[in-house]
Amino acid sequence: MKFSEIVKKLSASITQHSLTTAESTDPDLSGIDAIDRAQGGMLSYIEGPKFAAHVEKTAASALILPVDEALQTEATKRGIAWATTSQPRLVFAEAIALFYQPFRSTPGIHPSAIIDPDTTIGNEVYIGPHVVIQAGVTIGDGVCIHPNVTVYPQVKIGDGSILHANCTIHERTQIGAGCVIHSGAVIGAEGFGFVPTPEGWFKMQQSGVTVLEDGVEVGCNSTIDRPAVGETRIGKNTKLDNLVHIGHGCRVGENCAFAAQVGLAGGVVVGNRVILAGQVGVANQAEIGDGAIATAQAGIHSSVKAGEIVSDSPAIPNKLYLKVSAIRKRLPEIYQTFKELQRQLNDRP
Amino acid sequence: MKFSEIVKKLSASITQHSLTTAESTDPDLSGIDAIDRAQGGMLSYIEGPKFAAHVEKTAASALILPVDEALQTEATKRGIAWATTSQPRLVFAEAIALFYQPFRSTPGIHPSAIIDPDTTIGNEVYIGPHVVIQAGVTIGDGVCIHPNVTVYPQVKIGDGSILHANCTIHERTQIGAGCVIHSGAVIGAEGFGFVPTPEGWFKMQQSGVTVLEDGVEVGCNSTIDRPAVGETRIGKNTKLDNLVHIGHGCRVGENCAFAAQVGLAGGVVVGNRVILAGQVGVANQAEIGDGAIATAQAGIHSSVKAGEIVSDSPAIPNKLYLKVSAIRKRLPEIYQTFKELQRQLNDRP
Amino acid sequence: MKFSEIVKKLSASITQHSLTTAESTDPDLSGIDAIDRAQGGMLSYIEGPKFAAHVEKTAASALILPVDEALQTEATKRGIAWATTSQPRLVFAEAIALFYQPFRSTPGIHPSAIIDPDTTIGNEVYIGPHVVIQAGVTIGDGVCIHPNVTVYPQVKIGDGSILHANCTIHERTQIGAGCVIHSGAVIGAEGFGFVPTPEGWFKMQQSGVTVLEDGVEVGCNSTIDRPAVGETRIGKNTKLDNLVHIGHGCRVGENCAFAAQVGLAGGVVVGNRVILAGQVGVANQAEIGDGAIATAQAGIHSSVKAGEIVSDSPAIPNKLYLKVSAIRKRLPEIYQTFKELQRQLNDRP
Repeated sequence: MKFSEIVKKLSASITQHSLTTAESTDPDLSGIDAIDRAQGGMLSYIEGPKFAAHVEKTAASALILPVDEALQTEATKRGIAWATTSQPRLVFAEAIALFYQPFRSTPGIHPSAIIDPDTTIGNEVYIGPHVVIQAGVTIGDGVCIHPNVTVYPQVKIGDGSILHANCTIHERTQIGAGCVIHSGAVIGAEGFGFVPTPEGWFKMQQSGVTVLEDGVEVGCNSTIDRPAVGETRIGKNTKLDNLVHIGHGCRVGENCAFAAQVGLAGGVVVGNRVILAGQVGVANQAEIGDGAIATAQAGIHSSVKAGEIVSDSPAIPNKLYLKVSAIRKRLPEIYQTFKELQRQLNDRP
Repeated sequence: MKFSEIVKKLSASITQHSLTTAESTDPDLSGIDAIDRAQGGMLSYIEGPKFAAHVEKTAASALILPVDEALQTEATKRGIAWATTSQPRLVFAEAIALFYQPFRSTPGIHPSAIIDPDTTIGNEVYIGPHVVIQAGVTIGDGVCIHPNVTVYPQVKIGDGSILHANCTIHERTQIGAGCVIHSGAVIGAEGFGFVPTPEGWFKMQQSGVTVLEDGVEVGCNSTIDRPAVGETRIGKNTKLDNLVHIGHGCRVGENCAFAAQVGLAGGVVVGNRVILAGQVGVANQAEIGDGAIATAQAGIHSSVKAGEIVSDSPAIPNKLYLKVSAIRKRLPEIYQTFKELQRQLNDRP
Repeated sequence: MKFSEIVKKLSASITQHSLTTAESTDPDLSGIDAIDRAQGGMLSYIEGPKFAAHVEKTAASALILPVDEALQTEATKRGIAWATTSQPRLVFAEAIALFYQPFRSTPGIHPSAIIDPDTTIGNEVYIGPHVVIQAGVTIGDGVCIHPNVTVYPQVKIGDGSILHANCTIHERTQIGAGCVIHSGAVIGAEGFGFVPTPEGWFKMQQSGVTVLEDGVEVGCNSTIDRPAVGETRIGKNTKLDNLVHIGHGCRVGENCAFAAQVGLAGGVVVGNRVILAGQVGVANQAEIGDGAIATAQAGIHSSVKAGEIVSDSPAIPNKLYLKVSAIRKRLPEIYQTFKELQRQLNDRP
C-alpha cells in the first residue's frame, strides 16, 4: 500500500504529512512494526518526543509522529515519509487495521458440535468442532464460537460476539452484542458463597445471573461469578485483561479497563471509566467512583471517590503514596538520625 | 410458596415470626432477591441492624431479620411478614434452597465421550459430550462430569462429585466424595520442580499424587499441583475460590476457605479452619496453624500461629498492622515534625 | 532396585557412599519418598544439615545426604545405606527418574480429533481425542497433544513438545522443540490493547506473534499474549509456573523461572536467568537485567539491574527492604518515643 493511500485513509486523524513538501517520497509499504524492529518498506510510529532517538536510526520507510517540528525535520532529512497527529497511538492502531485482518472462522456449524435441539441460532453463525451447547440457549447473528467451548443451559449470546476456544459459559448468563470472551474464560459460574456453621461450611446456592453488556471483552482464563441472588453485571464496553476475577454480585460500570490479575471480591460496585492496573485487589462491598484509577497491586478496602487515583495496600491517595514511598526508602537512615537526636537530647542537662 | 410454609420449613433456625401477631399477613412468595432489588411477592433479608434503612424502603413482601425489636416493628408497620434468627445469612441461604434448584444434568453417558474400556463407572453417572476419560479411572455413583473435561489415567473420583466443563484431572489424582471441581480447574498437574545446574534447569519428575478429601470445592481455573514425591492434600470440606494456586506438596487441613487468587508455594502446611482472603501469598514450607486468618494480599513468609490474624507483606499481627498503617499514612507529616525538631535541637546551645 | 545399582547409575554426582565401609548394607529399594514419609525399603534425601533430625528417625532404608560426616555416621549407626553429594536435591531428582516414568500417550491420532487437511504432521506424534487443529499448522516429530486442545491456524510446534489437555494455542504462535504447555494454558491470544478515545476504547488489532524458544515450560492456566506488532518472546529453557501472565510484546530471556501468579504487563524486557518469586508484578516497559531476583509479591515499576535482588512494592533493593521491614514493625513504638521526645523538647526552656 502506498504511503499516500494510507494518509488518505487516515486523513481524519492526521494534522500534517510529508507529501506536501516531499511528494516524491511515497514509499510502497508492505507492513507495520515497532520502531525498533521495522525494516525498509514498513510503517511505524513513536508516541512522543522522548522516543526521538528512534527516528534517527529506524529503518522504517514511513512514520506516524506526534506533532513536533524537530521530529518532522529529522524524518525528512532521513528520507522517511511521515504524518503527524495529536494521537499517534490511536492512528497507529488505525494503521494496523489497514494491514491486518484478524483470523475469523467462516460461518457454519461443525458436525462434531453437540447442540441441544432446543437452541435458537441466528444467521451467519460459526460453531466450531467439539463445541457443546445445552438446552434453551439463544445465539444471535454473526456469533463465532470457537472449538471446545461449553455453553450451559439458558444462556443468551448477542449478535456478533466471539467466544474463543475452551471457554465456558454457565447457566443463564447473558452476553450482549459485540462481546469477546477469550480462551479459557469462565463466565457465570457459582459464586463463592459459604456460610460458616459449627458443622462446617453451608453452601449458599447461587441462583443469580451474570450479565455482560454490549462490547465487553473478557481476557483469557478470567472468571466472572454469578451471585446467590440478583446479578453480577459488567457494563457496556468494559475491557478485562487475562486472569481477572470478578466475584459474585459485583456491578462494574461502562468503559472500564481492568489489567491482568485484578481481583474483585463480592458485591463490589464500580463506576464508569474506572481503570484498575495489574494485580489490584478490591474487598467485599467496596465502592469505586467514576473515572477513578488504582495503580498496580493496590488493595482497595473501602471506598474510592470519583476521579481519585489511589495506590498501595490499603489504598491511599496516589500523591500521599508517592511521599510515603520516598520516606519509606529512607526509613533506616531517618531512624539513625532519630536515635542520634534522642542521644543528644538525653545528654543535655 | 406461602410465607407460613417457609417459616415451617426453616423453623429450626427461626426464633420468632410475624405470623403470631399478624396471622393474616401471609404473602404468597414467588422468589427471593437482595433487599435493594426485591419486588413485591419476594422474600429477602438483612444481615444486621446496620442495614435497617433498607427495611424502611424495600418492596419485599417478607423478610428474614436479625433478632432486633426495632426492625420487627418497622417491618410490621410496613405490612411486611418477617421471621427473626440469630443467623440471618444462614437462614437466607436455606431459603434460597427452597426456591432454587441448581442445574444438574440427567444421568447418562453421551456417545461423543471417549472412555477407555479400562474404566470403572458407578451408577447414575452423567458423562457429558466430548469428555475424555483415560485408562484405569474409577468413577463413583452419582458423579457428574460436564462437557469437554479431560481425565488422565488412574484417577479416582468419589461418589456424587461434580466436575464442571473444561476442567482437567491429571494422572493418579484422588478426588473424594461430594467434591465440586469448577470449570477450567486443573488438578494434579506436575509441580514446578526444577533444580538449577550450570547447564540450566534440571526437571525433577513429579511422581507424587494430589488428593482432595470429601467435600472439597475448587474454584474456576484454579490449579493444584502434584509433588515430586508424596502428596499434595486438601482436607475435608475445604473450599477454594477461583484462580487459586496450590503448589506441590502442600497439605491443607479441613474446613478452610481460600478466597480468589490466593497462592501457596511448595510444601506449605495449613491447619484446619484457616481463612486466607483474596490474593494472599504463602511462601515455601510456611506453616499456618488452626483457625488462623490472613487478610487480603498478605504475604506469609514463615509461620502463623493457631488463631492468629495476620496482614501485610511480610505478614505481621493484624493489630500491629492497623497501627502501622495509621502511622504510615501520616509519615510525610511526621517527617516534617521530625525535621522541625531536629532544627530546634540544633539551634539550641 | 539395589542401592548399589542406584549408586552406580548416579556415580557421576556422588562423592562418597556407605558401600565402601558397609558393603553388606545394600537394601533392595522399591520406591522413593520424602524423608518424613518414606517407609522401609525406600530411598529418600535431605537437603542440608538443618534437616539432621530427620535422619535420626526416618524409616527410609537409603538416603542421599549432603557432604557431612555427622550425618553419615548417624545413618551408618541406624543401618541406613547412604550416598553423599554436594547437590542432594539434584541427585534426588536424578534418583526419582530411576523409579518413575511419567505418563506419556502412545503415538497415534485419535479418530475424534478434527485436523484441517492443510496440516503438516511429523512422525511418532500423539494427537488425543477431541483435539482441534486448524489450517496451516506444522507439528514436529514426537509431539504429544493431549485431549481437548485447540490449535488455531498457522501455528508451529517443534519436535518433542507436549501440549496438555484443554490448552489453547492461538494463530501464528511458534512453539520450539521440547516445550511443555500445561493444561489450560493459553498461548498467543490477543494482547490487551485498547486506546482511549472520547467515544470509548478503540481496539488495537494484535497483528504480532508469540514465540516460545526450545525447552520452555508454561504452567497450567498461564497466559502469554501476542502484541499489536512484533513478537512476544520467551527465551530458551525458561520455566513459567501456573497462572502466570505475560503481556503483549514482552521479551523474556533464557533460563528464567517465574513462580505462580507472576504478572508481566506489556513490553517488559527480562534478561537471562532471572527469577521472579510468586505473585511478583512488573509494570509496562520495565527492564530486568540478567540474573536479577525479585522476592514474592514484589512490584517492579522501573528497571532492575543485572544481579540485583529486589523486594516490596515499589521494588527496592532487598537489603534495604529487610531494614525497612524491621523498622516498619516497630513504627508504633518508635512513634511513641518520638512524641515523648517532642514533649521533652517543648518542656525545656
